[in-house]
Amino acid sequence: MQTLDAGVGQKGARKGVGPLIAPLSDLQRPLRQQIFERVRAAGMIPRVQVAKELGVSPASVTTITSELIDSGLIEEVMTARDSDSGRGRPAVALGVRRDAHRVAGMKISDREHTAVIVDFAGNLIADDAIPRRPGPMTLNDLLLAMETLLDRVCAKAALSRADLSAIGVGVPGFVDSLDGIVLWSSILNDRNVPLASVAARRLGLPVWIDNDANLVALAELWFGAGRTLSDFAVVTIEHGVGMGFVLNHRLYRGSQRLGMELGHIKVQLDGALCRCGQRGCLEAYVADYALAREATTALNWGHKDAPPIGVLLESLYDHAKAGNATARSIFRRAGRYLAVGLSNVINLFDPALIILSGERMRYDYLYASETLAEMDNLAINTGRPRPPIEIHAWGDLLWAHGAAALALSSVSEMLLAANREIAAQ
Amino acid sequence: MQTLDAGVGQKGARKGVGPLIAPLSDLQRPLRQQIFERVRAAGMIPRVQVAKELGVSPASVTTITSELIDSGLIEEVMTARDSDSGRGRPAVALGVRRDAHRVAGMKISDREHTAVIVDFAGNLIADDAIPRRPGPMTLNDLLLAMETLLDRVCAKAALSRADLSAIGVGVPGFVDSLDGIVLWSSILNDRNVPLASVAARRLGLPVWIDNDANLVALAELWFGAGRTLSDFAVVTIEHGVGMGFVLNHRLYRGSQRLGMELGHIKVQLDGALCRCGQRGCLEAYVADYALAREATTALNWGHKDAPPIGVLLESLYDHAKAGNATARSIFRRAGRYLAVGLSNVINLFDPALIILSGERMRYDYLYASETLAEMDNLAINTGRPRPPIEIHAWGDLLWAHGAAALALSSVSEMLLAANREIAAQ
Repeated sequence: MQTLDAGVGQKGARKGVGPLIAPLSDLQRPLRQQIFERVRAAGMIPRVQVAKELGVSPASVTTITSELIDSGLIEEVMTARDSDSGRGRPAVALGVRRDAHRVAGMKISDREHTAVIVDFAGNLIADDAIPRRPGPMTLNDLLLAMETLLDRVCAKAALSRADLSAIGVGVPGFVDSLDGIVLWSSILNDRNVPLASVAARRLGLPVWIDNDANLVALAELWFGAGRTLSDFAVVTIEHGVGMGFVLNHRLYRGSQRLGMELGHIKVQLDGALCRCGQRGCLEAYVADYALAREATTALNWGHKDAPPIGVLLESLYDHAKAGNATARSIFRRAGRYLAVGLSNVINLFDPALIILSGERMRYDYLYASETLAEMDNLAINTGRPRPPIEIHAWGDLLWAHGAAALALSSVSEMLLAANREIAAQ
Repeated sequence: MQTLDAGVGQKGARKGVGPLIAPLSDLQRPLRQQIFERVRAAGMIPRVQVAKELGVSPASVTTITSELIDSGLIEEVMTARDSDSGRGRPAVALGVRRDAHRVAGMKISDREHTAVIVDFAGNLIADDAIPRRPGPMTLNDLLLAMETLLDRVCAKAALSRADLSAIGVGVPGFVDSLDGIVLWSSILNDRNVPLASVAARRLGLPVWIDNDANLVALAELWFGAGRTLSDFAVVTIEHGVGMGFVLNHRLYRGSQRLGMELGHIKVQLDGALCRCGQRGCLEAYVADYALAREATTALNWGHKDAPPIGVLLESLYDHAKAGNATARSIFRRAGRYLAVGLSNVINLFDPALIILSGERMRYDYLYASETLAEMDNLAINTGRPRPPIEIHAWGDLLWAHGAAALALSSVSEMLLAANREIAAQ
């Protein structure tokens, strides 16, 4: 399998391609790309349906899909048009060519790193995870961990690195996905780390990085809610609070790719101290370290004898379930601030759907009926129902899948760009 | 001049047209519309430049601009291609056909209503204003005021109502611009008022309504920042706090057209009481009624002897300038909360530019260097400069101009849609 050279440590090349990251300009999303994305989202879809959904002529769809088939991006698959009736007349549909490429996706986080390998249609081939000691680390330690994890997941998939076309990596914190730079992350000692180019050199593959919450939104766009919805918000609660926003089938990232930092909107002037060094950030009231801070007080644990944060939070949750008023009040307060954060999302973005995601969603106090009722009370009173809230309590595997979707987008957009150049000749 | 019938009290027709309000789908913004918008934004532009900027073939531009000229939307104008050199070789450029249509724009607000009449290129023909007593009013009183104001501004322009093609109206509060309904407004007694259709029947013209802050953003898009920028945020401070967000040359309104309610994001749990009935809204700390509330305390005015709010705020401002510590602390606190609101806009939207607009911008304490410094401290620390902040202290005339831009958009999109249907035949 061929490795795409573009993007390996070449900032110029990255900018030229601009996967997903491009502004929402119509011109940068030509029909070729819209057709490919429609096929990808649908799984299997007849040409006539693509033409209908995109409002273009069947002839245009036929021309462009021929090009996409020639480029190896999509393929014809036989399907049963009328399987319900039992007559099962076979028909030709289009699907993404699964074997065209394989990519890896990786989630870097505080307590473990997770990786997946998927095919070009996003199907899981293998996954693996390695634990780590929480806290910031050096770039070299991170690269070593990424390399170890990559080799392990490759071994599981019986593939070599050279079989992969790209790697997508999700990192918590402030990430400029276009330039491939981690501006700040709770897991790195240094600021302004050019992780994409450094990791690309180390791993010998194109590497694309993004904020981890953006990648959960991307996973939803590719494999979840995005199959039916063009616009939705994803709010993640884990070690921090994150947000991703999908608008017109694309991630909205902001003018410098630094938007959607819901965890750091201020919900209290001169409020609680946040990991980022500022005060009053939403995540300083809602994220797991905020709960843990109060738990050490409530459960009478000193700093030295406090267990790891996971154990601490499980214990706090058990106490709350057993009726401990203080433990309950900790979750209750976090839930109220979460309600503030969610109502602010509603009041500003008016999303068609909010998906709550992340491991902490298992603490159902966070989204108990009283939290949702409070959110309703804080959202503007328009007399209309609030947007639906869905809870997707998926773990790190989904996040890694989102990172793989980033790699898939990059690969497919490079191929589409190449395809466009050939077509223009 | 012909009056466009569509939209007069016909909700179905409104939905079919969907000016500006359409989701940001590429498909609903065909090349015809992009070319028209490019010409409109540029003022005067040669065909070859349109082709270059939109990245399409000069032949496509020639075909489509011929259709647009035939439909009376644009016209050829003679220009000097090289006027700097003095040789002034004449060349043909395209411009919007100024005389094609005239529309009215109206801003409904707490203390006065303002109206303008503009030509199809947005040039001012006449303006007028009528004062009003603050507070909520009945729908009938509002309609009467609108009719009076419309007739006055028509008389100034030496035009009759029948010479106008549409009216755009900006209303404070929660407005569904697509359905033409005011869900809640501080200036109306009732909720869920179908203002667009009722006013259209009363005035005999198509009426389009929107939230007033959206219309300031639309004015910037048509006549200001939008001529060079595709993405920016506008924050307005007057009797309330509003926001408009331009993304890819369009207003972003949200899935139910109820987004961007910056004035009602919660900046304090269980905080100060807002006009909307909720607590802790940003505008309950920053808007003029919030300042006035504290001013009556600071300046020892009882409820009965307090002067009108404008006089009260001027007096507070004078005291602050003269060094009165309490008066200063009122502006200082409002400025701090404004910093919270603006930092939240930065942290979520990462805009390329923030424009602060509205009459209250003359209270420079609100955006004094310490407010901007506080905003910097509350925005996420990425090591990059914050987005530029521009102050546009324009008055009601700009807001009315934005309302006229809404009417112009509606008219041009209807014509473009008709043009498309003819072209498709």
